[in-house]
Amino acid sequence: MKIGLLGYGTVGSAFYAMAIEHPETSDITLLDLKRHDDLTCRQTADFQDILRDESIGTVVELIGGLHPAYEFVSSALKSGKHVVTANKQLVSACYDELIALAEENSVSLRCTAAAGGGIPWLHSLARLAECDRITSVSGIMNGTTNYILSAMTEQGTEYADNLREAQRLGYAEADPTADVEGYDACRKLVLSANIAFGVSIREAEVPCFGISGITAQDIAAFKRLGLVCKLIAHADRAGDQVAACVEPMLFPVSGQMAHVNGPDNLISLHAERVGTQRFAGAGAGGFATASNVLADCFEIMRGCGAFYTSRRDAVSVNNAALTQRYYVRAGEEAASRTMTVAEAHAMADQFKKERKPFFMAAASEER
Amino acid sequence: MKIGLLGYGTVGSAFYAMAIEHPETSDITLLDLKRHDDLTCRQTADFQDILRDESIGTVVELIGGLHPAYEFVSSALKSGKHVVTANKQLVSACYDELIALAEENSVSLRCTAAAGGGIPWLHSLARLAECDRITSVSGIMNGTTNYILSAMTEQGTEYADNLREAQRLGYAEADPTADVEGYDACRKLVLSANIAFGVSIREAEVPCFGISGITAQDIAAFKRLGLVCKLIAHADRAGDQVAACVEPMLFPVSGQMAHVNGPDNLISLHAERVGTQRFAGAGAGGFATASNVLADCFEIMRGCGAFYTSRRDAVSVNNAALTQRYYVRAGEEAASRTMTVAEAHAMADQFKKERKPFFMAAASEER
Repeated sequence: MKIGLLGYGTVGSAFYAMAIEHPETSDITLLDLKRHDDLTCRQTADFQDILRDESIGTVVELIGGLHPAYEFVSSALKSGKHVVTANKQLVSACYDELIALAEENSVSLRCTAAAGGGIPWLHSLARLAECDRITSVSGIMNGTTNYILSAMTEQGTEYADNLREAQRLGYAEADPTADVEGYDACRKLVLSANIAFGVSIREAEVPCFGISGITAQDIAAFKRLGLVCKLIAHADRAGDQVAACVEPMLFPVSGQMAHVNGPDNLISLHAERVGTQRFAGAGAGGFATASNVLADCFEIMRGCGAFYTSRRDAVSVNNAALTQRYYVRAGEEAASRTMTVAEAHAMADQFKKERKPFFMAAASEER
Repeated sequence: MKIGLLGYGTVGSAFYAMAIEHPETSDITLLDLKRHDDLTCRQTADFQDILRDESIGTVVELIGGLHPAYEFVSSALKSGKHVVTANKQLVSACYDELIALAEENSVSLRCTAAAGGGIPWLHSLARLAECDRITSVSGIMNGTTNYILSAMTEQGTEYADNLREAQRLGYAEADPTADVEGYDACRKLVLSANIAFGVSIREAEVPCFGISGITAQDIAAFKRLGLVCKLIAHADRAGDQVAACVEPMLFPVSGQMAHVNGPDNLISLHAERVGTQRFAGAGAGGFATASNVLADCFEIMRGCGAFYTSRRDAVSVNNAALTQRYYVRAGEEAASRTMTVAEAHAMADQFKKERKPFFMAAASEER
């Protein structure tokens, strides 16, 4: 297969290194603004060169971000090229439109690497969704926040110190907002829920409460109760409604979740017949992510179509029916309150608007 | 697709119930010695009826055991029919021959359900093996023994009592040998290693030491050391050699492995670039297993070929290079000894021959 590779960042360069080891995927044309004199492949700075080249059957989009990734991917699909992408922001935001485009043009759109890094998570979800009724997806879907929370728990140190350390180690970006406020996890949750439940929910419907408000005191309070805090994305399907949010949750120190440390991901599904399944591994990183991208390429080569279905139920996100017990701290005052997810996140929004110190975390059954 | 379903036991009937819910897989001809008047599908007691019916493109073999499953599967492949099977005994023993047959006849042979029950384990291994170099596979691959060991650890009770309880609950068969002596886990390990490493090792080369010799006293001794005992199948590739065995291993009570209880499986792989990935879920049960069988059918329908490669390296199992620390108890006498896996299993064989009470378990780094 001839591949048009868009982007040569962390994942792009890892993909290139892996792909050229295989004769089937070594014929690569690279699109990058910068020329790489150490590479032997054809290179261009103009996407039109790739689009116009009819011998290129598959475009691998590893630029990230919405633009120009959206324009590149949609025109590639329209030109009858398969697309593999790891771009969670793009696929989460433009899911419906891109699948329709892929179907119209009888090509594949695969994005296993868009959630869970190297874990075959979306791929497994799609496989199971055909056979069983998946009723929930949940877990640690963001490695940056898990690294920070693990370090705070182990060392008793403050959030800001650990964020800086995460940035130094390359686990957090210079602007950490998407990770620490839960938006990154939210995108992965939306993708997961849409594939698992056969629905079409949107990022904007899913409330996110992140970890930027957590203090060493909160962690100490959880420790006294035998609890560990993790940032969890969870979506549950009940009938024609989906409850979905991103929020800190508390797990017993003696359970499985408490032992997932550092930048790892642990993601679970529950299905009516298969029961609960858990997947754990590196949720980010160049090579881990690139391996899922390359595996998607091989599957396209073998004739596997897109694993996203366009027949999806119209459902809305409704967090008013799911009640949880929350640890709530406003200023120095901590309390325990039982609320719906909708009420809890409305309260969090209010404190955020008023710029008052606030943190909350939901008690979890180990899940 | 028209399906010839062989067998209507626990997995067969679960498969039938799931398959008829989907228009694509509801056209089923059932082979069973007994007629089921409650079923609406075509039924026959003669395999030739299925073999001769050219409209049946896929045979789903859920009889189990070597014969007549071997004869049915090989003649189905020779007749140009795809085969999906959950039969670990068959696929582990006749791996090379059946793949060659499938290739010669340009059909698929898929067996995701043969290891890990409902977990997409072999499927994920095959997917990753194409992209990365997998260096180890290991884990709890047998639910029966994990149920027994969990119960002994929780209740402090004896092996025989828990085996009876497992039989009563349907977790163990009337003849529990294959489970408790590790042969079942061994078959799954051989399959996993062959797919993961691209090799062709055989059951007979892999030493198995099971749990039938464990006592409540052993468990109590482990508890005092903060350890939990699990029956682990593990295979490690180093160069052109593979170390592989099934044996009890000891894990810290504070780690992840210690928290996998009851009949669940937890299976891990390590690959050079992707790192460690873990998969957990129901490793047996009719519906869990049937879901992987049905997913394999859908993949055949979509044109995905067999995921087993016939290009495999000739390697031998060598357990002389892997040294571990073992808890060893002969009679009442317990000690700790550092030995190679080969030495430990030779010692175990000797005690078995002499019919002397003996138990051993290897200390594990959490893996």
